Amino acid sequence: MAYLNDNYLKLQAGYLFPEIARRVREFCDANPDAAKRLIRCGIGDVTEPLPPAVIAAMHRAVEELGHRETFRGYPPYEGYEFLRGKIAQHDFRDRGIEIADDEIFVSDGSKPDCGFILDILGHQNRIAITDPVYPVYVDTNVMAGHTGPAGSDGRYEGILYLPGTPENGFVPDPPNEHADLVYLCFPNNPTGAVATREQLSAWVDYAREHRALILFDAAYEAYIHDREIPRSIFEISGARECAVEFRSFSKNGGFTGVRCGFTVMPKSVKGQTEDGQWLPLHPLWLRRWSTKSNSVSYPVQRGAEAIYSTEGQQQVRQLIDHYMGNARILRQAVEGIGLGVYGGANAPYLWVQAPKGLTSWQMFDRMLTDLNVVITPGSGFGACGEGFFRISAFNSRENAEEVARRIGGLKA
Amino acid sequence: MAYLNDNYLKLQAGYLFPEIARRVREFCDANPDAAKRLIRCGIGDVTEPLPPAVIAAMHRAVEELGHRETFRGYPPYEGYEFLRGKIAQHDFRDRGIEIADDEIFVSDGSKPDCGFILDILGHQNRIAITDPVYPVYVDTNVMAGHTGPAGSDGRYEGILYLPGTPENGFVPDPPNEHADLVYLCFPNNPTGAVATREQLSAWVDYAREHRALILFDAAYEAYIHDREIPRSIFEISGARECAVEFRSFSKNGGFTGVRCGFTVMPKSVKGQTEDGQWLPLHPLWLRRWSTKSNSVSYPVQRGAEAIYSTEGQQQVRQLIDHYMGNARILRQAVEGIGLGVYGGANAPYLWVQAPKGLTSWQMFDRMLTDLNVVITPGSGFGACGEGFFRISAFNSRENAEEVARRIGGLKA
Repeated sequence: MAYLNDNYLKLQAGYLFPEIARRVREFCDANPDAAKRLIRCGIGDVTEPLPPAVIAAMHRAVEELGHRETFRGYPPYEGYEFLRGKIAQHDFRDRGIEIADDEIFVSDGSKPDCGFILDILGHQNRIAITDPVYPVYVDTNVMAGHTGPAGSDGRYEGILYLPGTPENGFVPDPPNEHADLVYLCFPNNPTGAVATREQLSAWVDYAREHRALILFDAAYEAYIHDREIPRSIFEISGARECAVEFRSFSKNGGFTGVRCGFTVMPKSVKGQTEDGQWLPLHPLWLRRWSTKSNSVSYPVQRGAEAIYSTEGQQQVRQLIDHYMGNARILRQAVEGIGLGVYGGANAPYLWVQAPKGLTSWQMFDRMLTDLNVVITPGSGFGACGEGFFRISAFNSRENAEEVARRIGGLKA
Repeated sequence: MAYLNDNYLKLQAGYLFPEIARRVREFCDANPDAAKRLIRCGIGDVTEPLPPAVIAAMHRAVEELGHRETFRGYPPYEGYEFLRGKIAQHDFRDRGIEIADDEIFVSDGSKPDCGFILDILGHQNRIAITDPVYPVYVDTNVMAGHTGPAGSDGRYEGILYLPGTPENGFVPDPPNEHADLVYLCFPNNPTGAVATREQLSAWVDYAREHRALILFDAAYEAYIHDREIPRSIFEISGARECAVEFRSFSKNGGFTGVRCGFTVMPKSVKGQTEDGQWLPLHPLWLRRWSTKSNSVSYPVQRGAEAIYSTEGQQQVRQLIDHYMGNARILRQAVEGIGLGVYGGANAPYLWVQAPKGLTSWQMFDRMLTDLNVVITPGSGFGACGEGFFRISAFNSRENAEEVARRIGGLKA
């Protein structure tokens, strides 16, 4: 009698984005004319072509695979040294952060990594997750059996939720109770909030006091414009002992369809065994990769490497400036109709308060039917997201300007 | 206090192939001259360049990502329809096997899939695994906490091992006891054995009687030459109710470095909940992919699609003929020195009995030091592999011929 994993049955509805896709499809089928003017500002998917330096590098790598002399088979499990070295040097050591090449593990994206990390952690851990936040942290813990069932507010028993509100600027303080694993995401998806050095230091202090592990999702670090804001948890002294960081090439290099990211796993991060020993997580993570993966496609790793070239860096900067230009245009439009708006300064997301009395999904439906614009309902990111919605700045300039115009029309 | 997953500490030594790599590295460092003539027949990694049809398709796809009009972001979680449709049509429906497009889930390889499948299955399942076999099935179950510690023979408590021996042709019969999950791999890695229609039918009968689930790894199906041997478990009537199949493009299209494979998850396969309901696994698998992945790189999926073109099929056939030509040459050489040899007829692996009295690792060391040839010690695939070693036919013709010559020298 093959048993299935009952924990999957606890999951609420669909994962957020497939659910949005389903509603949009239904609307478009029923309204073919409106469908033609539909603009998607929902899922945070990039729209601009890959940087030319990346395209050139991927072509070269594909060509290498076509000739016996330059053909390559299985990559190293943790990723090629040419890429790990570039990452560690450029993203960390050049910024004064001590990270070794072999502390970088290349992956097919930070979303998979956020789930995979639970493979090497114990089921006893008490989990703390900010709310609202990227749904993957919660859902992967539900799947792993780390929670009870969901309540009527969609919150799962056993998770310690850390409310992000306009009052705390969507950056929760460490709680007054114990947690073993803490998920932090800054720049935050969905609120666009960033955490200051002092705020992150408070979290590192908490982690060291509680011997907890911080799982730091920095997928949007490239959007940080303010030089005072840390771009990595490892800018905080002591983080090498209590944090793991997830990074992505999706939103800087436009790799959502190319698939590459990485985890920073310091050799100094330890976890506890059942019998109270403290052992480094690094060998477990390496073992996980060697047993469950054969790393990432060679042309993809060469494409990611090209992001670190001089031209690659310039081209990525242009992409980010483009999306942040959209964010400014959209933010002005939302401010113009008097809605409360957050984010959009150091992150490609606007977090908007729905008009009084409207739920997130009601606002989703209104934006879809009245403006033919797809946004993401805030409640999909957690109970604290209710009454908000997220507008993604990932779009062409033309579309961003058109969405701004349509939002302006909401005034009437 | 962050807890780690103690189950990782039960794992024996390193994962097999990193351990081989370590020993080879040590030998080469100590013997630089011998290192120059080293030939690797260990890890089953392809050596020949990608088929030209694949290279062309990947170039086209990379180019598309460089232009706004043809750029693509996140792929569908389960893989692009263009690829899923080709797979289902060509590998299944054209051969009279009823598999729908949406029963195909594209992945970055069958190795990851073999591990990921445990995500959606319960921890109560009793696991049966043939021995010797690809180590990933055992190791991923150890990591998931489905076993006790290992004994002195390397076998883990709680797993039902099914011995493959020369007597049963390395195709174990279904056991006289109950199992919930059964891992089968045919053509077998490492023995090269294939299962007949009758043998697979006995397994499907067993699964239906025990309401068990067969996890069928068909990564090497392209090497089946004998028309009477099933290439898919779904050629067996009733398998749609009790089997999941893993496939790979690594060994047909030479994708070990490109990374693509797929799982066939029939909508009719069910698993049991704790309270005795039987529910389809398909929605859980879909949910797993949508929550934990963003699918596979677009150029990689286009490359895989090209395998199904007319030219792609011809080019893959040439690759397989090449490797199977190597297998014949190597097999003759091993037979020539009077060692017992299996496989190599419908699979790219030879499974060879070490000279009497030599363990697998002793034979590994002898082949490395005396012949400067890397093979894989059979004991790395399970207790029943002790006294055997595996020779991979994945090589250039020149290397295969040179290895055959060196093996001939062992006679003296």
